[in-house]
Amino acid sequence: MKFCSECAAPVQLRVPAGDHLPRYVCDACGTIHYQNPRLVVGCVPDFEGSILLCRRAIEPRRGFWTVPAGFMENRETLQEAAARESYEEALAEVVIGSLLSVVHVLHAEQVHVFFRAALPQARFAPGPESLEVALVAPPDIPWEELAFRSTEFTLRRYFEDQAAGRQGHYFTTLDRRAPPPRA
Amino acid sequence: MKFCSECAAPVQLRVPAGDHLPRYVCDACGTIHYQNPRLVVGCVPDFEGSILLCRRAIEPRRGFWTVPAGFMENRETLQEAAARESYEEALAEVVIGSLLSVVHVLHAEQVHVFFRAALPQARFAPGPESLEVALVAPPDIPWEELAFRSTEFTLRRYFEDQAAGRQGHYFTTLDRRAPPPRA
Repeated sequence: MKFCSECAAPVQLRVPAGDHLPRYVCDACGTIHYQNPRLVVGCVPDFEGSILLCRRAIEPRRGFWTVPAGFMENRETLQEAAARESYEEALAEVVIGSLLSVVHVLHAEQVHVFFRAALPQARFAPGPESLEVALVAPPDIPWEELAFRSTEFTLRRYFEDQAAGRQGHYFTTLDRRAPPPRA
Repeated sequence: MKFCSECAAPVQLRVPAGDHLPRYVCDACGTIHYQNPRLVVGCVPDFEGSILLCRRAIEPRRGFWTVPAGFMENRETLQEAAARESYEEALAEVVIGSLLSVVHVLHAEQVHVFFRAALPQARFAPGPESLEVALVAPPDIPWEELAFRSTEFTLRRYFEDQAAGRQGHYFTTLDRRAPPPRA
């Protein structure tokens, strides 16, 4: 952020009075521009034990596989966002189920939320953001070609829970802010 | 949003190519400014069956009661946000427990997330955003003087679960976008 979105004056990054974190502050009009984590919402669509995966047509991680997920929009629920993303990315009409995972992706300033989902019919096709979509049986999940660590965490918890006959929800935190120096 | 935060040119609200919702678009530098729901995170601090409530010193809803909660910051987890808010608003050191409620507040473009929490010691005091803080026994909860409907939903589910001996998590949606016309 370089300029105030209210008055177009240059903003400065500093700690406002009474606050404890640096914010983008406009000294011309007084607006404080807060920045907060964005929600990314998705689901694990299950058709007779196989999972609907999408191969990404866009960056980041073009060519890698993921479950349907994307940025939550204003004025929708988490469940509506997960269903919408499934339709946009895989033209799949899912029925959203229970909460499965919450992943704090600190370096990306995102919170990822995934639900279980049923795919009542095996009808799907690539949306504009997918190269291909496929129903993948558990032994065929391309673990080495998954797009995101939050996808992997979510799918592993999904299959573990299935094996254990439960539907829990799981939190984790990913942080690549301080990667180890390369040798 | 009136001006581009990248280049200070005026922005326009329109549907970008390939998108389906109106966005603030800068035709000068090409930036699309997405707007997404903000996360508000809080907890229900419990000390020997009584709940730590805060009476708000700031708008909105100054003078009304709520549990500690506030906007999630970048680079923290949901649980860290809930604990931080308890300290800021009530100088209370809590231990965050299980997920309790998720409230989609559509008209405010917010998602509220609440956790159960333990208050190991009855040590607390008003932070700068609170007029007073108090441990309140269940029969004394000021239901008519709660600040927000998400607070009420959360506290009701908390006590119901306690009575039933369970710790579930509960979703709901609040929407005041289209209030009924006044008589």
